[in-house]
Amino acid sequence: MISKRMEPLVNNNSVIRAMFEEGKQMADKYGAENVFDFSIGNPNVPAPKEVQEAIIDIVTNEDPVKVHGYMNNAGFPETRAAVAGNLNRRFGTKFTEKNIIMTVGAGSALNVLLKTMLEPGEEVIAFAPYFVEYGNYVANYDGKLVVISPNPEGGFMPKLDEFEGAITPKTKAVIINNPNNPTGVIYPESVIKEMAAIMEKKQKEYGSVIYLISDEPYRELAYDGAEVPYLTKYYDNTLVGYSYSKSLSLPGERIGYVVIPDESDNAEEFIDAATIANRVGGFVNAPSLIQLVIARCVDAKCDVAYYERNGKTLYDGLTEAGFTCTKPQGAFYMWMKSPIPDEKAFVAAGKKYNLLMVPGSSFACPGYVRISYCVSYDQIERSLPKFKELAKEYF
Amino acid sequence: MISKRMEPLVNNNSVIRAMFEEGKQMADKYGAENVFDFSIGNPNVPAPKEVQEAIIDIVTNEDPVKVHGYMNNAGFPETRAAVAGNLNRRFGTKFTEKNIIMTVGAGSALNVLLKTMLEPGEEVIAFAPYFVEYGNYVANYDGKLVVISPNPEGGFMPKLDEFEGAITPKTKAVIINNPNNPTGVIYPESVIKEMAAIMEKKQKEYGSVIYLISDEPYRELAYDGAEVPYLTKYYDNTLVGYSYSKSLSLPGERIGYVVIPDESDNAEEFIDAATIANRVGGFVNAPSLIQLVIARCVDAKCDVAYYERNGKTLYDGLTEAGFTCTKPQGAFYMWMKSPIPDEKAFVAAGKKYNLLMVPGSSFACPGYVRISYCVSYDQIERSLPKFKELAKEYF
Repeated sequence: MISKRMEPLVNNNSVIRAMFEEGKQMADKYGAENVFDFSIGNPNVPAPKEVQEAIIDIVTNEDPVKVHGYMNNAGFPETRAAVAGNLNRRFGTKFTEKNIIMTVGAGSALNVLLKTMLEPGEEVIAFAPYFVEYGNYVANYDGKLVVISPNPEGGFMPKLDEFEGAITPKTKAVIINNPNNPTGVIYPESVIKEMAAIMEKKQKEYGSVIYLISDEPYRELAYDGAEVPYLTKYYDNTLVGYSYSKSLSLPGERIGYVVIPDESDNAEEFIDAATIANRVGGFVNAPSLIQLVIARCVDAKCDVAYYERNGKTLYDGLTEAGFTCTKPQGAFYMWMKSPIPDEKAFVAAGKKYNLLMVPGSSFACPGYVRISYCVSYDQIERSLPKFKELAKEYF
Repeated sequence: MISKRMEPLVNNNSVIRAMFEEGKQMADKYGAENVFDFSIGNPNVPAPKEVQEAIIDIVTNEDPVKVHGYMNNAGFPETRAAVAGNLNRRFGTKFTEKNIIMTVGAGSALNVLLKTMLEPGEEVIAFAPYFVEYGNYVANYDGKLVVISPNPEGGFMPKLDEFEGAITPKTKAVIINNPNNPTGVIYPESVIKEMAAIMEKKQKEYGSVIYLISDEPYRELAYDGAEVPYLTKYYDNTLVGYSYSKSLSLPGERIGYVVIPDESDNAEEFIDAATIANRVGGFVNAPSLIQLVIARCVDAKCDVAYYERNGKTLYDGLTEAGFTCTKPQGAFYMWMKSPIPDEKAFVAAGKKYNLLMVPGSSFACPGYVRISYCVSYDQIERSLPKFKELAKEYF
């Protein structure tokens, strides 16, 4: 008695789960240390020390009725003020606590925004390759995901011509993910400006509001001092969904926020509605203790250099072995061209060497694979000879 | 640019918020100690000491990558096993970890269940007075809430004749809340058996599956050793939504679970689908640190006697003053008959004495008010002379 809307998800999920089960079976058979699982985005760098200290101090010294209690559905005022202050210091924005709603991670942030804005049948544009849940999130509110084809020749930057042609009077939002999962690229300011100009033009043409939703759990994971443009500065109808999952290594805690700037259309009403969407969607509020931790740790940083070293060593090793990879500028994913068009067959071949990768078709981009390198450096080093053996089958 | 489906919620919400704002203004004007806010269900009894100890021990001694990391979307195996074990010991059930999915509180538990089962247009039955969010949760999945009228003559037990007549081939589920918010009554075993018999009969008649959803955040708040029947033992297609918000005073932490028993229809597929619904609904998983706390504190208890004393003192004081109340058997709500049919006018009159109550029309039951007594005993004592003054206006 499963809802018909859930059925395809159940069927599709069993493929992914089969992969995880296989990984576990491989670990049992060969020993966990001999299986190179690059399939999941679970950070291996621990949360910064400040997080641990803040948790202990808060539960030791603050009133438990407050620490574990309800607050306004938008979050504790001090947490929202701390988030706004952090953003203002770094990006020259002028947010106050009222522009911030704390959420149950980025997943809930995106759902809250989409629930607040979408009419049935409205369209949301995403650029392939994209995080597969976008389609599910949009479908939750009876919207339609419109996918712009991948741009391998252009370094996986968004295809702006195709984008412009895809915007219709039914377009309610565009989601971008910067730094990008799964490609690891960062869209620079020039690209953002062009996107914003197209969207401004289309808003005028259709007399509509088109939101730019910036999904940015990887914002803090940018390498070599690369700048990740803060999108509210380029386009008024920008809404931000953020997560501390990667930046503070707290993925299991489900803590993030949305930003709804004053400049966005009808901001006050949208903020009210999003706060209510947070409640009626069943999230109610972001977890309370961790909200108070964020209020204190908003400037803390996890060890990004660890991921950068992983990425560099992996990139050098893979390209030396003959593979073609997109050089990561951020996040912790290596996006590699499959040496054969059928990347699922390539992923299967990798398993012979106990190498677990995710096929690009899971991101609407066949012919590529994603290698998650938020793993130990040791695993990276030990996996390279295996990748070399795998390469010999093709080059 | 708010979704049309959100607009009525925004308009409705502003009424409730106006009430909270008024409460704050009253506190500023008269001093917080002179305002008797009985409007919200935020437990004032602190979380048990074990919770604090577990948090400190876990963040001090366990691997932060595990503590704050992703786990299976259904939750940590040890947490789910601990929950199953606790239920089995107390109720003689035979759950294993696979019957339990940890959720972001009861709000997400109910949303996960409804998302998993509902086809657009299907009906869910609730008994007035009921928790107002049920309507929103059902609407999230395009279902229709069917309300059974309140039963003041029958001690607010469910009206089973009306219930039987309301079940149609489109009925997918029935939600009950036991102990009940807002009435504080407990449905005894005899009522549950009758309900189950009706539902069995209707399932046969229509060849359908009708789920009984037991929403039980107040299960542990039962007074005088009252038994709260465990519903999976009476009806195979029972699904449970639970929250630790009240039982461990952790409402802000958003931690709860669903139980999907083996005996329920197509249980294995339903469990898979509910786990996926947890993910795609944007919850992803219940917060990780608090999940590990629950694994250790599953047998901990908050101070229910505190609420029982509050309830008794308030009941005695209010009835002595001339009001008619439903004697609370559990939860922490006093359900009081308004001395005039227009209970909103009565609520307004209460404000003259700085008494804040919630009108029964917020629970689909005009003519009554809800008084939340999860407040300090001192507030109860100091409020009674005010209630007496208020009573003098009517009796």
